[in-house]
Amino acid sequence: MPISGRISSPPLRQQSYGAIRALTQALASPLSDADATVQAMDDASPAKWHLAHVTWFFETFILRDHVPGYRPFDENFAYLFNSYYEAEGPRHMRAHRGMLTRPSLREILNYRAHVDAALMDAFDGLPEHARDLVTLGLHHEQQHQELLLTDILYLFAQNPMQPAMWATPSAMPAPMPDPIRWIAGEAGVVEIGHDGKGFAFDCEGPVHQAILRPHALAHRPVTNGEWLEFMADGGYREARHWLSDGWAWVQAEGVEAPLYWRHQDNAGWTRFGHDGRHPVNPAAPVTHISLFEADAYASWAGARLPTEVEWESAAKGLDPDSGTQLDRAATPRPRACESADGLAQMFGDVWEWTGSAYRPYPGFRAAEGAVGEYNGKFMSGQFVLRGGSCATPRGHMRASYRNFFYPHQRWQFTGVRLARDI
Amino acid sequence: MPISGRISSPPLRQQSYGAIRALTQALASPLSDADATVQAMDDASPAKWHLAHVTWFFETFILRDHVPGYRPFDENFAYLFNSYYEAEGPRHMRAHRGMLTRPSLREILNYRAHVDAALMDAFDGLPEHARDLVTLGLHHEQQHQELLLTDILYLFAQNPMQPAMWATPSAMPAPMPDPIRWIAGEAGVVEIGHDGKGFAFDCEGPVHQAILRPHALAHRPVTNGEWLEFMADGGYREARHWLSDGWAWVQAEGVEAPLYWRHQDNAGWTRFGHDGRHPVNPAAPVTHISLFEADAYASWAGARLPTEVEWESAAKGLDPDSGTQLDRAATPRPRACESADGLAQMFGDVWEWTGSAYRPYPGFRAAEGAVGEYNGKFMSGQFVLRGGSCATPRGHMRASYRNFFYPHQRWQFTGVRLARDI
Amino acid sequence: MPISGRISSPPLRQQSYGAIRALTQALASPLSDADATVQAMDDASPAKWHLAHVTWFFETFILRDHVPGYRPFDENFAYLFNSYYEAEGPRHMRAHRGMLTRPSLREILNYRAHVDAALMDAFDGLPEHARDLVTLGLHHEQQHQELLLTDILYLFAQNPMQPAMWATPSAMPAPMPDPIRWIAGEAGVVEIGHDGKGFAFDCEGPVHQAILRPHALAHRPVTNGEWLEFMADGGYREARHWLSDGWAWVQAEGVEAPLYWRHQDNAGWTRFGHDGRHPVNPAAPVTHISLFEADAYASWAGARLPTEVEWESAAKGLDPDSGTQLDRAATPRPRACESADGLAQMFGDVWEWTGSAYRPYPGFRAAEGAVGEYNGKFMSGQFVLRGGSCATPRGHMRASYRNFFYPHQRWQFTGVRLARDI
Amino acid sequence: MPISGRISSPPLRQQSYGAIRALTQALASPLSDADATVQAMDDASPAKWHLAHVTWFFETFILRDHVPGYRPFDENFAYLFNSYYEAEGPRHMRAHRGMLTRPSLREILNYRAHVDAALMDAFDGLPEHARDLVTLGLHHEQQHQELLLTDILYLFAQNPMQPAMWATPSAMPAPMPDPIRWIAGEAGVVEIGHDGKGFAFDCEGPVHQAILRPHALAHRPVTNGEWLEFMADGGYREARHWLSDGWAWVQAEGVEAPLYWRHQDNAGWTRFGHDGRHPVNPAAPVTHISLFEADAYASWAGARLPTEVEWESAAKGLDPDSGTQLDRAATPRPRACESADGLAQMFGDVWEWTGSAYRPYPGFRAAEGAVGEYNGKFMSGQFVLRGGSCATPRGHMRASYRNFFYPHQRWQFTGVRLARDI
Repeated sequence: MPISGRISSPPLRQQSYGAIRALTQALASPLSDADATVQAMDDASPAKWHLAHVTWFFETFILRDHVPGYRPFDENFAYLFNSYYEAEGPRHMRAHRGMLTRPSLREILNYRAHVDAALMDAFDGLPEHARDLVTLGLHHEQQHQELLLTDILYLFAQNPMQPAMWATPSAMPAPMPDPIRWIAGEAGVVEIGHDGKGFAFDCEGPVHQAILRPHALAHRPVTNGEWLEFMADGGYREARHWLSDGWAWVQAEGVEAPLYWRHQDNAGWTRFGHDGRHPVNPAAPVTHISLFEADAYASWAGARLPTEVEWESAAKGLDPDSGTQLDRAATPRPRACESADGLAQMFGDVWEWTGSAYRPYPGFRAAEGAVGEYNGKFMSGQFVLRGGSCATPRGHMRASYRNFFYPHQRWQFTGVRLARDI
Repeated sequence: MPISGRISSPPLRQQSYGAIRALTQALASPLSDADATVQAMDDASPAKWHLAHVTWFFETFILRDHVPGYRPFDENFAYLFNSYYEAEGPRHMRAHRGMLTRPSLREILNYRAHVDAALMDAFDGLPEHARDLVTLGLHHEQQHQELLLTDILYLFAQNPMQPAMWATPSAMPAPMPDPIRWIAGEAGVVEIGHDGKGFAFDCEGPVHQAILRPHALAHRPVTNGEWLEFMADGGYREARHWLSDGWAWVQAEGVEAPLYWRHQDNAGWTRFGHDGRHPVNPAAPVTHISLFEADAYASWAGARLPTEVEWESAAKGLDPDSGTQLDRAATPRPRACESADGLAQMFGDVWEWTGSAYRPYPGFRAAEGAVGEYNGKFMSGQFVLRGGSCATPRGHMRASYRNFFYPHQRWQFTGVRLARDI
Repeated sequence: MPISGRISSPPLRQQSYGAIRALTQALASPLSDADATVQAMDDASPAKWHLAHVTWFFETFILRDHVPGYRPFDENFAYLFNSYYEAEGPRHMRAHRGMLTRPSLREILNYRAHVDAALMDAFDGLPEHARDLVTLGLHHEQQHQELLLTDILYLFAQNPMQPAMWATPSAMPAPMPDPIRWIAGEAGVVEIGHDGKGFAFDCEGPVHQAILRPHALAHRPVTNGEWLEFMADGGYREARHWLSDGWAWVQAEGVEAPLYWRHQDNAGWTRFGHDGRHPVNPAAPVTHISLFEADAYASWAGARLPTEVEWESAAKGLDPDSGTQLDRAATPRPRACESADGLAQMFGDVWEWTGSAYRPYPGFRAAEGAVGEYNGKFMSGQFVLRGGSCATPRGHMRASYRNFFYPHQRWQFTGVRLARDI
Repeated sequence: MPISGRISSPPLRQQSYGAIRALTQALASPLSDADATVQAMDDASPAKWHLAHVTWFFETFILRDHVPGYRPFDENFAYLFNSYYEAEGPRHMRAHRGMLTRPSLREILNYRAHVDAALMDAFDGLPEHARDLVTLGLHHEQQHQELLLTDILYLFAQNPMQPAMWATPSAMPAPMPDPIRWIAGEAGVVEIGHDGKGFAFDCEGPVHQAILRPHALAHRPVTNGEWLEFMADGGYREARHWLSDGWAWVQAEGVEAPLYWRHQDNAGWTRFGHDGRHPVNPAAPVTHISLFEADAYASWAGARLPTEVEWESAAKGLDPDSGTQLDRAATPRPRACESADGLAQMFGDVWEWTGSAYRPYPGFRAAEGAVGEYNGKFMSGQFVLRGGSCATPRGHMRASYRNFFYPHQRWQFTGVRLARDI
């Protein structure tokens, strides 16, 4: 069930609602009640929790606040399924989300159906502000679609039986991509940030000017094959490539390869994905790396990470719906790098770490109300990623889109594109 | 499905096998796949794991070792469901048992059926040593029945919705029991330990002599009502009652009542059980207390804990199958203390902490082979408990039975009976 | 022994060397061998270690590398007193610096004298590159002067006897400063970064352009008096003012006031300094606050933190040697805010947290060799502070100077100046 | 300054006071102020703290309580130097003892002199109960003499320069001792525990009967040479020898040899002591081992640890002042095992781990008042050691003496003597 078009177009919003909500459930359909319940680490949430939390968002900010007489499906759910909105009162501790064996997956699906029905009934009578919140809720749900996929992957990876979520025909052997070519970027005064036309999260604006020095971006992301060279050259064992915090992390965690990689005597390096464990494909973009690894690689390669201004100014004219993104409930997998004249794979495939800390743009103002907690309060200690991944729902991406994670985190489909001064 | 008789009687062993295996599954029958999968703390195991592990025991030590041509149900299960037998090779980390969303509960039940069928087929041809291992396996399974119940209770207690496992008609109001009477114990040379007739775990023997000074035991366990007096008198706030390690534990954990107790403005003190949350019954024995709490209470009361020699010498003549023990798949709940002339509730209701560290008896030898890891290697840092509880399967108990836990643990049905010198 | 002039002026370098080295020892002179040995937390180092480490820097990068025939004072010291230069080989673990009860303070002072004599002997024959390293070494030593002061303050604050390092006549009561006035900053394209004339650390360059939107800075830092209003208004108890990581920090650490503040029944709020414990002075700039606190205060006050571009563009024309800075071995203490027409107290008094993450400037290149580890590898997770403090040696500061700490750290003399868009 | 005779003999008590107090200071005399201040781990205390704490004991329980008009030397010291007596009010946190750079070692020595003078002045007028507390204080001080030695050794071992506290002429090469001979112990009813004649700690009584089965003790402790065989045979790598908690400890800590042992390419196995780092002497008793290691060794050797009843019944007739014990301020070092007909080295050399948990004897009652916290509250989780070590002051030991440590602790001079059933 592919999502056609972009949500922010108002006449399509009701259609989008159905399609997006259905995709979420399709993603969860291979999961058992147990699969959907367990929390594999503090950073991840159970699939059941994702299914319920996005529903709580619609129930709370639209039905409760804008539909007179609406009765919540279950009085307990506000406590259980609020994520981090302090303004919404006390809530279940994040690290204990995995204790909720009840309500069951079945009950959560009932909850979804209840809210969907109530929302569709109410839709025509909603004030414009509430309709905007529906749009926000759909983008919010798309974000959780990606998290649901990456969180469940992390869980399955802990299982010694290495279960696959979807069977996938193995990929055709891909030719090795060309060496990196350097594409010069725009220099001087550029304009970035979202201009307010169509939907965007508050942190993407306001639009503003910045100054770029002469620089170039690699025409494609770094591949697994290149990453293996870095590893063979002692990349994980030499402190001089690494940020100080990164080196401490490598040593404390014993990191020696991307997440989900494992070396097997008979099979060489393998990686784990939604399709189970398979050999690493040298032609595909490396993924599941931390900012620390991305930065160390760039240092080893005599390059650096792009800034988010460089990235966005280069991406502005490109189609954000292009590339390998999530279209349906199937294994998300970055495709092998192909030949291209210009910048390739800017959107989709792997999130690209930038060297920019996640901080407010000049003139940033958080949205009003509880949803104002959506972005601004996370603006310390994290780095910006750009461009979406193979697990990002198609239609969700924008050139101005700012994703953010801590520099050690790598359970998302994260990769790296090099940059350099020229 | 009550268990009739004791397992150790050989002609009944095959019948016992069926009854015990059936009870295990009956205990798990209210559980969803998710309920049976989650591990709520490192000390506890998922219900699914219990169901599989006890089956692995039969499959490994009987079918694999004694039935030519037996093929394991699944080659992975030895890795997943070995508990701690180092001699059986590497195994899944205890703290990660909750990551196993697969195999499903359904598959584990199939595993049980497969092993049950194979064992029943093979039974008549088994050598005597293997039959003894079946007996051991049944006692082992009974131990896990109790753990399954206490582990699932711990999990359900983490759920803000406080789900009940079984609905239970609320108890009749019980009259408050008589004050404690002191029953003098045997003094001089006594003999304790298992004499080798019938089944016993290796740690219960050999039988040996010990010397007792004049002493007395309370005729019944301490009640919730008495515990409330201890609390009201500042029992949890005064260091002088506590062992040093206990006081550190109270402060670090913020302990101020037995586990599962909660004070509610409208209901006073309540406790959580397999029947959900209900008011504390002052007439029932206090339970879910640690050794530290038991010892502090005894100190506050001007008494002490019994030693295991005192306890066993007093219990020797009593019927170990008496008292409130587990007969069927229903809420285990200590019954209110009743009037009695002699020692009451020695067996069943609540495990009684003794003041004896869990160490080998004089002349102790661990059993040969992997099953020799059953007891001996745990003999440091733990204390002995005696008498079984309302969650102990009837037929499993003996006067010589030695249970053991660390002094801070309290998720079992643990209580306390006072002793004193006379 | 005040330091006259700036180090970077070459003819004065030899004089500066003597003056700076002497000030370091004067700062340590109130310390006993024990005071100089203990490490009070992982982030801090013993005074003895500071005294030795700065000396090791001169011994290694000048004497060892540029003076033929120089023999190290002690072969062990390279291992003991290297801080974090991976290129210089293995070294004593940072967190174990406090285990070095030997060598004694006396031996370290001998080490200093030995290196000083060898360096003065060799000075005239040093190549220019080595002389530049002397200059770097002196700036490095000035940084450690400030750290020595703040680390020893942290240690003394742990002592229940609250010892003073220097007796200080108590301050005259200061009049309360004027309310904050907003001083508009430069807007449009501005130029920041060090232009390469005179000494600067590598991270201060290269000079580059940036764009500023209309904004204003407060004419002075926030005072203790204003901070008390924030506290009285529940500033530390309301999540909505805080960054998410900051709120987690407040709750985990139980933070409710700046570091070293304590409420005493008879004295109200007091603070601890090198002059012991004294009442908080409401007219003085608040200090010993984290970035999290600074940001929460700004949010509460309806303002924000300045960016480092805003700060530097405003500070460019001001005298970096002005304000309360460290001139001699005596209690460092921010002075009360005074009336002023323009920006006041930009230099000295308290380091001012900016809202800028510590990241490389466009075109940044780390210095060559081991000293290239000086700055670049710390560019993740930290925020920039500007302007120096009362504990910064006078002569050390520049408008382009970038200090950096993690957002939770607050044992430096850190404060906050507000900014806002206009 | 050897201590002549035993303290408990009343006419000698005043002389003993002087001699014991002088030995404490002699032990500390090689220490600098810094050496005496640092706390190298939570289990250890700074030497300065030991010097002050034992003095606080006399000041508090004798001078304050029994000498009218006595004024404490410093009002702060009760807070700083109380160890764990809850009845004496709040106190400085144990883990922060190393933050006390002040008062200085010099001031603590003045404190000692002050209290010594006051006590000697008051001595003749003290009531008998107070005199008994002086005796207790002297035994208490002797315990801290041993702790001072072992704590400072732990500190010095952290220093990469491996400083020696005392130069010691290297030992004559000792002949390898005879293989172990087994000495049969008393069987049947034996009597152990202190009979109340002369001084003993409360936990040593009351005297009581116990029953022993036929058994034998090794005629001497296990040697370093034998320990090297255990290591060479994979002793630290095979789970089956170890208690479960012990194996977890070995793996978590990476233990592969006794504490302070290190393998050096050119020197083989060396050990660190108060005389610095030297080759391991194969003829000397192994020391600095945990209960876990002792138990694993015994298991590997096909033997077991003695119980404390077995040990005491064997030691009763032997001279507790014999063997290598602490006579003066010099390197404590277990002497090589020598030929002997009967039990050798029962007293002195190394503390011998027993297999007995540290629990109260039948009929135990803690002493009244604050000193009642001396022993009883530590009776969980620890094991009993017997016989004293080379660091135990001569005159301090008794056959009934019960020392106790947690099973993982090994910074004392701990060793092992094997036992077995016969």
